[in-house]
Amino acid sequence: MLRRVALACALAVTATGASANPELLRMQRDPNQWVMPNGNYASWRYSELNQITRENVGNLKPTWQFSTGVLRGHEGGPLVVGEVMYIHTPFPNRVFALDLNNPGRVLWRYEPTQDPTVIGVMCCDTVNRGPAYADGKIILSQADTTVVALDAKTGKEVWKVKNGDPAKGETATMAPMVFGDKVLIGISGGEYGIRGHVTAYNLADGKQAWRAYSVGTDEDIKFDPQKTMSMGQPVGANSSIKTWEGDQWKMGGGSTWGWFSYDPDLNLIYYGSGNPGTWNPVQRPGDNKWSMTIFARDATTGVAKWVYQMTPHDEWDYDGVNEMVLVDNLQVGNQRVAKALVHMDRNGFGYTLNRENGQLMVAQKFDPAVNWATHVDMETGRPQVVSQYSTRAQGEDNNTKNICPAALGTKDQQPSAWSPKASLLFVPTNHVCMDYEPFRVSYSAGQPFIGATLSMYPPQGSDNLGNFIAWNPGSGKIAWSKPERFSVWSGALATAGDVVFYGTLEGYLKAVDTKDGKELFSYRTPSGIIGNVNTFTHKGKQYVAVMSGVGGWAGIGMAAGLQGESEGLGAVGAYKSLSDYTQLGGVLTVFALPN
Amino acid sequence: MLRRVALACALAVTATGASANPELLRMQRDPNQWVMPNGNYASWRYSELNQITRENVGNLKPTWQFSTGVLRGHEGGPLVVGEVMYIHTPFPNRVFALDLNNPGRVLWRYEPTQDPTVIGVMCCDTVNRGPAYADGKIILSQADTTVVALDAKTGKEVWKVKNGDPAKGETATMAPMVFGDKVLIGISGGEYGIRGHVTAYNLADGKQAWRAYSVGTDEDIKFDPQKTMSMGQPVGANSSIKTWEGDQWKMGGGSTWGWFSYDPDLNLIYYGSGNPGTWNPVQRPGDNKWSMTIFARDATTGVAKWVYQMTPHDEWDYDGVNEMVLVDNLQVGNQRVAKALVHMDRNGFGYTLNRENGQLMVAQKFDPAVNWATHVDMETGRPQVVSQYSTRAQGEDNNTKNICPAALGTKDQQPSAWSPKASLLFVPTNHVCMDYEPFRVSYSAGQPFIGATLSMYPPQGSDNLGNFIAWNPGSGKIAWSKPERFSVWSGALATAGDVVFYGTLEGYLKAVDTKDGKELFSYRTPSGIIGNVNTFTHKGKQYVAVMSGVGGWAGIGMAAGLQGESEGLGAVGAYKSLSDYTQLGGVLTVFALPN
Ligand SMILES: O=C(O)c1cc(C(=O)O)c2c(n1)C(=O)C(=O)c1cc(C(=O)O)[nH]c1-2
Ligand SMILES: O=C(O)c1cc(C(=O)O)c2c(n1)C(=O)C(=O)c1cc(C(=O)O)[nH]c1-2
Repeated sequence: MLRRVALACALAVTATGASANPELLRMQRDPNQWVMPNGNYASWRYSELNQITRENVGNLKPTWQFSTGVLRGHEGGPLVVGEVMYIHTPFPNRVFALDLNNPGRVLWRYEPTQDPTVIGVMCCDTVNRGPAYADGKIILSQADTTVVALDAKTGKEVWKVKNGDPAKGETATMAPMVFGDKVLIGISGGEYGIRGHVTAYNLADGKQAWRAYSVGTDEDIKFDPQKTMSMGQPVGANSSIKTWEGDQWKMGGGSTWGWFSYDPDLNLIYYGSGNPGTWNPVQRPGDNKWSMTIFARDATTGVAKWVYQMTPHDEWDYDGVNEMVLVDNLQVGNQRVAKALVHMDRNGFGYTLNRENGQLMVAQKFDPAVNWATHVDMETGRPQVVSQYSTRAQGEDNNTKNICPAALGTKDQQPSAWSPKASLLFVPTNHVCMDYEPFRVSYSAGQPFIGATLSMYPPQGSDNLGNFIAWNPGSGKIAWSKPERFSVWSGALATAGDVVFYGTLEGYLKAVDTKDGKELFSYRTPSGIIGNVNTFTHKGKQYVAVMSGVGGWAGIGMAAGLQGESEGLGAVGAYKSLSDYTQLGGVLTVFALPN
Repeated sequence: MLRRVALACALAVTATGASANPELLRMQRDPNQWVMPNGNYASWRYSELNQITRENVGNLKPTWQFSTGVLRGHEGGPLVVGEVMYIHTPFPNRVFALDLNNPGRVLWRYEPTQDPTVIGVMCCDTVNRGPAYADGKIILSQADTTVVALDAKTGKEVWKVKNGDPAKGETATMAPMVFGDKVLIGISGGEYGIRGHVTAYNLADGKQAWRAYSVGTDEDIKFDPQKTMSMGQPVGANSSIKTWEGDQWKMGGGSTWGWFSYDPDLNLIYYGSGNPGTWNPVQRPGDNKWSMTIFARDATTGVAKWVYQMTPHDEWDYDGVNEMVLVDNLQVGNQRVAKALVHMDRNGFGYTLNRENGQLMVAQKFDPAVNWATHVDMETGRPQVVSQYSTRAQGEDNNTKNICPAALGTKDQQPSAWSPKASLLFVPTNHVCMDYEPFRVSYSAGQPFIGATLSMYPPQGSDNLGNFIAWNPGSGKIAWSKPERFSVWSGALATAGDVVFYGTLEGYLKAVDTKDGKELFSYRTPSGIIGNVNTFTHKGKQYVAVMSGVGGWAGIGMAAGLQGESEGLGAVGAYKSLSDYTQLGGVLTVFALPN
């Protein structure tokens, strides 16, 4: 009887959802496992493991591999929970549970039935950034927006819910995240005039708890006009819809296809919203709030605590969805910020904010090539746009040239790694510029709502399309930068062994020294890497794991079989030589030091 | 002037074709390269390289990899010519030239345009066993029977010829081979009532030099009734058509989808023919010659010197196409055979013949489970069939049970390796039995002409579906046998380092000790291995290379997405648990010892 009461109490506590999921809180701190896509709630992609060091990483070797049987771009990375590794694939979104005691042995596999027409409304390859783990469940967000909870032991479906409608251009690529007793999930479709939102479902049964849109009425976006803050001011009433003409906000974009972070003490979740629809800025005057915005929302209610819009009235497709890295006790100038948020935005600026209140502390270019804005005004938070590179100023049907960065930004979805030991953020970046010609387009549900023709190429005088950099988020300075032939489209991993790992589009897994970026290790995996590097231990030994399988926006030419230079939203031309280095194919590789 | 005359003479010599291609003769002896599918003209799959030894092979590690972007079964193996590696894929039959000085860098790639309907008439997955190299050309035999010569430096087409007609069920999977100034190629389609043949084309321009059928008139099969010998006797007139009823030979099968060997001194080529059509023996009384036969043909004229039929009147689909291993100075009993031929047949008997005249010297079971025949009569060369396992005797629409081996034989196409150092043949084998129910079928061009329902399973009392064995071809005895969970569907490689390599269907590349089969090394590649292991040096260092990518007949369930137990000609049921271990995906892995 006593036991039953205790159980009931436990359930009651969980049900409030106010506090974090205690098991997950504990697990995300355990370096032996890798239980959420970016390693921990703070999106650090950092591991305390230090068996692999700058001294011995050169000896790292593949120990076993597993092909997924799926060809297109493999984003995300393996989860490790106890003695089981979970990997996933792009559409058709297979999930495999692999036995670490018998490497490569499939404990179970799951393949949802999905209408393949969804492929036609996915903007940037059929990628998926991975499932979430919590409370004995694997939560998968399928391309067709179905969210399904699987029993982590058996792979059997526990519940299933539909988060959007592919017929309207709504799809899913992002990784869900569990906060407390809820699982949060975003939506893709910024190129189809959808209206972005994040939605919390009950972890237990998949019932919707709350939904908050990126654009729309205060009620829809869960803003409190008096309490939701932006740049130190309350946002006031109708902060979103008053920045749009007429009903344009209804197809306003601001999709939410990136990453979630969470501060359990503040009970705040952080994420960014994507581009406003269409890509033709002339058609949508105004700031187009709250596209291109960092949101801090109460995890329990969804109500926004603060927001910050990086790129008001976007003219370049600089989606603001990149990961929010939660750094504690950061030295910014002569100030110590107890709770900072670092965000390397697609627009080429690296931002540091106070994550309690949204105060802007640093905004500096993280690639000197960035030219669309001179700087960010620290009073207003607004970038100072250079008219020569303003596609609005240059006008419709006019090809604005040499804008840096290109639409895929100085950094896209590929997550960075924060080393608290080195006090540096390691950032996979793009070094790409573009020509951008806006044209008039009209909205039709489920049809592309783009309205711009692009072409991409390296900055003048460069022949590398990427750099892997170390960033000092306190000073807003690049500590070191290592050029790469192609954009670094893979998520980084920093470790207490003073090394940082990342993959290249040619297919190399590399390890470099945190202190100077010196290359210490390189291995050519089967295909280009757009997956994220993770680490864990098994029976006391440290392993490093990564998915190869080229694709994503940078690899869209190969993934979708496109040839024209300006196809793939302009990306095909820049990366066409990629097929001289690699071909498609999803493979997990697990590395270790020889015994 | 003198130079021109010399050149003309050189051309004249080449044009006779009587002697072997001198460059290729030299290259196939060079252990630093791997210039033909089975390593040398004698089909040894043996290398003199000895940097990797039984002592150090345990340290072998993957050094680089390359995904092909193609999912189905990857048979064959890489060729290495100078500093270039050539790899190929199943349908659509891509070829990649990879730069060994810059591993993974694609020098050129070729992908033929083929009508995908050919996939529907390929019996046993869309495999391809690799191109041939000669005289600066890569000769590829496409699924649709187009034979194309590519410039090995540029990948540009030099000539192209059509060897068959997929509309009649004629397809191609086998590797061409160059003999003298000709390239020889066979044909697949035994399950579609085709009539098998081998055809020689001029290496220079693709013009047909000669064609020899497996069944038909003496002219068609290029037999000299007086001079072509079988079991020490001239075959006599109409040796083929008199063993068929009426016109049945016209859809008589005997396809030629296996391997070629060549003895340059004798100027003889060796290969085997496949099953007679249909699989229902009741429908085609007679010996059905020359299906299931070893042929020795003059390389210049195509005329048969001798033949030996292993399985007259086949009742089990025991195609006779497995490789012919040419062994010199073999001790057989107390006789020394200067020129022997060793052939591990699908029917479960290992044969040793004198390859000069076709004299049968040894015929012994290489799996004790073999039960369809008690033995081979050494006078007549005929197997003594056990009536209980005779699908003819048991009759149409009767399910004959527990026949061993199954239709895919004690060994299928996966080539063995001969170590002259160990005097042993290392043989990847199947350990599978079957139920076989023949039914009446009528011929229609391009339609399956099978007429039997099969199911397959391990022999009673066994739970392994394969063994990797060492065979003494002089004594006809198994030296050692190493059980494997699944059939060993990969080609072996023996080396002067006293190790023998092979791959498993789960995806392990293994190395075992030639003397006792002890496992010395094992690495889990991305997918099941049905490719053949090759070795070469680059800048003085020994490498071992293999394609993974599960499929072939054993992996047809996964490759073609079949579920029913008796689908895939009966193979799906036996191998259904394979998907608990591996998934599709073609990847090259190159191994080496750490520096
Ligand atoms: O606006 C959107 O809804 C949306 C969705 C996605 C996506 O879901 O992958 C991408 C983008 N936009 C995008 O702008 C972009 O650069 C991008 C890159 C990638 C990728 O995975 O490589 N996805 C996306
Ligand atoms: O009769 C034929 O023409 C023919 C062709 C092939 C082929 O081309 O692969 C196979 C077979 N038969 C066959 O009997 C067989 O066991 C087989 C296995 C495989 C394979 O690659 O795994 N192919 C074939």
